[in-house]
Amino acid sequence: MTSAAYVAVDWGTSSLRLWLIDRAGLVLGERRSEEGMMTAAKTGFAPVLQSHLDALGAAADLPVVICGMAGARQGWVEAGYIDTPAHLSDILDRAVVVGGQARDIRILPGIAQRDATAPDVMRGEETQLLGALGLDAAGEAIVCMPGTHSKWVRVRSGTVERFATFMTGELFSAVARDTILSHTVNGAEEAADEAAFKSAVADAIAAPAFAANLLFRVRSRQLLFGGSAAAARETISGTLVGLELAAGLVERSPETMVTLIASGRLQRLYQLALETLSIPLRCVDAEEAVRRGLSEAAAAIWKS
Amino acid sequence: MTSAAYVAVDWGTSSLRLWLIDRAGLVLGERRSEEGMMTAAKTGFAPVLQSHLDALGAAADLPVVICGMAGARQGWVEAGYIDTPAHLSDILDRAVVVGGQARDIRILPGIAQRDATAPDVMRGEETQLLGALGLDAAGEAIVCMPGTHSKWVRVRSGTVERFATFMTGELFSAVARDTILSHTVNGAEEAADEAAFKSAVADAIAAPAFAANLLFRVRSRQLLFGGSAAAARETISGTLVGLELAAGLVERSPETMVTLIASGRLQRLYQLALETLSIPLRCVDAEEAVRRGLSEAAAAIWKS
Repeated sequence: MTSAAYVAVDWGTSSLRLWLIDRAGLVLGERRSEEGMMTAAKTGFAPVLQSHLDALGAAADLPVVICGMAGARQGWVEAGYIDTPAHLSDILDRAVVVGGQARDIRILPGIAQRDATAPDVMRGEETQLLGALGLDAAGEAIVCMPGTHSKWVRVRSGTVERFATFMTGELFSAVARDTILSHTVNGAEEAADEAAFKSAVADAIAAPAFAANLLFRVRSRQLLFGGSAAAARETISGTLVGLELAAGLVERSPETMVTLIASGRLQRLYQLALETLSIPLRCVDAEEAVRRGLSEAAAAIWKS
Repeated sequence: MTSAAYVAVDWGTSSLRLWLIDRAGLVLGERRSEEGMMTAAKTGFAPVLQSHLDALGAAADLPVVICGMAGARQGWVEAGYIDTPAHLSDILDRAVVVGGQARDIRILPGIAQRDATAPDVMRGEETQLLGALGLDAAGEAIVCMPGTHSKWVRVRSGTVERFATFMTGELFSAVARDTILSHTVNGAEEAADEAAFKSAVADAIAAPAFAANLLFRVRSRQLLFGGSAAAARETISGTLVGLELAAGLVERSPETMVTLIASGRLQRLYQLALETLSIPLRCVDAEEAVRRGLSEAAAAIWKS
């Protein structure tokens, strides 16, 4: 453990991931925990962090760089927002020091779009952007970061120009769990119905205004024609992903590829949806992106 | 009570309304109850009905006509569906007799759209349509029936040609109660914010694909600019109503007025939304529509 240079922490609302990293960016140790901001706000951020550092045998003076909800108003120390248009390097310059700690701990700020007609905020995703695009990114990138609150971001020459958050993941959960459609998806196995998903994506993109009708058809279809719970679930998912894509892709010029920052099931779903639409695509693993972003920050802050 | 000719019952999922009506269509007595299909399916439909008839002193041989979820598969007796294109008079012809009862009890069927690409069902709304338009309706009508599951229906010369259900009301409840937006609407008073509602309707109609983003902006706006819980609630409501209107109005020819069948708060909201769009409008009270529809059915079935 003598070679560890810093600790990187992605501290979200409901979970945290922590890596011990050496000067070359190599991961020496890793921790995952459900002690997200919601939990740590009650039990204390400092002891939660220290317990994971102890578990990895981290030196007492090892510096720590953090992104995510730990920097929210209801988090550890408010790290504020930098405003659009925001160069990704601004994130590093505006890192906030957590006072009163034995070691050097910095929290990265989020990004705010203070546009009265299209206000928006991100916290954590800016670090993923930094990791996926790098500090010296040239040209235009359209970035899709699917999740509970999916983000679509336009970045030009390393500057976040504009972004929009879509409640897609949270809408999916609410619709599948708390509406009449919960009966239709009951007992759906993890096995996906790709055909149902792709067809729902296409339907939503063709007629986004019909989203609330496309959702109800899931029930009508099962009532009149039968059909599996898996098909119902994938149709709900495809409808909401398609609705998001219909908006997210609207400003993309035909030659611009979409950078998809995602992992696991979400990566597979969005990749499938974008491929169905023949959109050129570059995939970046979300976890790797945030770790690389934190490493960029650490390198810049501590000139390592 | 000697002049009562029949009993009309609107038996929905979560409530029932019952009227004692004379030969001229005059209401002699009324009952309202939370013993909807969900409750009655457990306690028994016959005793629930009899208790309300007893409370009104109805004669033992007074016939009863029922519409709504009492005719669903999980209801009292399944009254099935008539298929589109369905003339409103078909509803009367296909009423189902509840067997083994001392009195003559009929349940009206629903309407099904057995279209594999746009399947849909209604149960109860067909009776509202009958009451609002009459058996001898001429010309084309575009009918909007807002609610938990809003219906948009195209009727030509008394024939239901096509309809679509939108989960607008249920989405509103799920979004306002079960997502991050629940914090933004917390403590919203009943006082409406008309400006916020109208502006949200216009935004959703202008860019329906952005619905899931327009919803998230409610939170971003409150975070960055503040704003009342009432404004947040009306913005969520306006976004979802606007999304529905963007689809519901799509097939309307400019000269066709919209028949709005609604009551109370929903009537006010949809009227406001449609007026904002300068759509010519005819309002029919939803409760009166269903009672008139049931009366039309009673008159036809018992030739009174």
